[in-house]
Amino acid sequence: MNIDMITAAAARLKGHARLTPMLSSPALDKIAGKRVLVKAECLQHTGSFKFRGGWSAVSALDDTTRKNGVIAFSSGNHAQGVAAAARAFGVPAVIIMPADAPILKIEGTRDLGGEVVLYDRASGENREQIGADLAMQRGLTLIKPFDEPQVIAGQGTCGLEIAQQAADAGVSNADVLVCCGGGGLTAGIALALEAKAPRLCVHPAEPEGYDDVARSLISGQRERNAVEAGGLCDAILTPSPGEITFPILARLCGPGIVASEDEALRAMALAFRHLKVVAEPGGAIALACALFHSDKIESDTIIATISGGNVDPKVFEAALKTL
Amino acid sequence: MNIDMITAAAARLKGHARLTPMLSSPALDKIAGKRVLVKAECLQHTGSFKFRGGWSAVSALDDTTRKNGVIAFSSGNHAQGVAAAARAFGVPAVIIMPADAPILKIEGTRDLGGEVVLYDRASGENREQIGADLAMQRGLTLIKPFDEPQVIAGQGTCGLEIAQQAADAGVSNADVLVCCGGGGLTAGIALALEAKAPRLCVHPAEPEGYDDVARSLISGQRERNAVEAGGLCDAILTPSPGEITFPILARLCGPGIVASEDEALRAMALAFRHLKVVAEPGGAIALACALFHSDKIESDTIIATISGGNVDPKVFEAALKTL
Repeated sequence: MNIDMITAAAARLKGHARLTPMLSSPALDKIAGKRVLVKAECLQHTGSFKFRGGWSAVSALDDTTRKNGVIAFSSGNHAQGVAAAARAFGVPAVIIMPADAPILKIEGTRDLGGEVVLYDRASGENREQIGADLAMQRGLTLIKPFDEPQVIAGQGTCGLEIAQQAADAGVSNADVLVCCGGGGLTAGIALALEAKAPRLCVHPAEPEGYDDVARSLISGQRERNAVEAGGLCDAILTPSPGEITFPILARLCGPGIVASEDEALRAMALAFRHLKVVAEPGGAIALACALFHSDKIESDTIIATISGGNVDPKVFEAALKTL
Repeated sequence: MNIDMITAAAARLKGHARLTPMLSSPALDKIAGKRVLVKAECLQHTGSFKFRGGWSAVSALDDTTRKNGVIAFSSGNHAQGVAAAARAFGVPAVIIMPADAPILKIEGTRDLGGEVVLYDRASGENREQIGADLAMQRGLTLIKPFDEPQVIAGQGTCGLEIAQQAADAGVSNADVLVCCGGGGLTAGIALALEAKAPRLCVHPAEPEGYDDVARSLISGQRERNAVEAGGLCDAILTPSPGEITFPILARLCGPGIVASEDEALRAMALAFRHLKVVAEPGGAIALACALFHSDKIESDTIIATISGGNVDPKVFEAALKTL
């Protein structure tokens, strides 16, 4: 992984991914007691930065391989990012999802042209086996959600934009809080900023109880979460940081920051009110850290990513109740 | 009013107003049966295009006049646009609001540095008299919400961006639906497109029962609404088109399009789900027309403005229930 892979991904994404805006509001600055800039990846195609990684990975395949199609395991944003990218290239995308995934996510993926294959978690069906069989039969290429260099490179294009937008806003020193699951976006942004804006320091942002990355950064080895599923921030829940992402995070990131689910809901509500954008809980955790844990952050300026590919209206209503 | 005033306003706004993105989603295209591009003015500072007009008007004043401050009558987006612009110039903004305005709007205006002066609608206090007295005492300049050339010029900068973004998207023919109250935004965009993209045809979009502009375009004279207040689309309810705006609309616009309040709520919900942006009912009426009345539109591509400076969470919850 290096900056050249990210700039190459940026060239492939140009004209296809959106250059998402950096938003701000005096009201949010007041809450945080610092300047807060919000990188609005919720406005990316499919509602999250996952489109960048999906496009990067699909576009990096040679024509012959790509023609056969791609396959991904995901019930959420990665599924939609890969499906949308594959459709744009006119190639099949098979998405393996649990049969009990929310119908919203299944339909959302189908609407983007994804061929959804459901497996039954309860009866012990093995999704890896199903995926491997399909991949073998049809010559599909597996696109992993984060531990895949071209996916990390795609997410890194968000970091290139942050570097430029921070410079445009006159910001040379800042802490950059990134919503962190397996670490693909965090590693990609960290690599981009190392090359383009080394005084912007990246911190992974995670929900309480799922702070595997923060603990891994302290211990120096890949820690696991005690609980591996459930929780409002499902978009960013992974058992542990990735094999490829963790060494990058360990080398480049400052300490992880953690916020509660309730704080994530409040951050969603404040983004609704003051920025007019829609985030999901996992995609609001970095903003929650920025707003409610700014005492743990050194710089006067915080940049936080926000995203929201699959927002359950019921959860959004719960967030609005916090206003 | 001419294009030179708009390009001059654009020069004054540069670096201060946001260049708002043009969003889209395959799901919205499917609903409309046409390509739909959404000009996301909800992402403008203060949540609506009113910031453009406010900045344009305040920045057009000579230094001596501006130093004394400005005054506006508004309980909504115009108040916040003017307050934010005045604060940026370091000059006072007095905003006259009814005492029974939602506390959210009063506080939102104060948070932006506006000096809110409340009057009592019920007891018959005359807001014009209060405003005139204050303006006289303090040398304040009145900034009208739409019937003011520099405000129209400011809103027109949104049209310059639409012309450029449509060209970037390969769109040369389109119908442009604009949420229309007094007609400031609609007239500004129409003037900008006349000069920069004459094959983009503007249509005012209004809620049922408040279609004064649509009826005025048919009769050729300024018609009034039977009911002058109330309704979900309060952000764009005015008794009739403006004296300055109407001749521009009559010369440049195609027929008005009308949608129901329920359709506005559904458009808000679809913008939530597919675009991840927050609109208020009045700011979603053009998208509602695009999605649910596309049969009245000739082109294959529709561009719709969307905005949402003051969204009541309760109204937003009602919108989410339509999903």
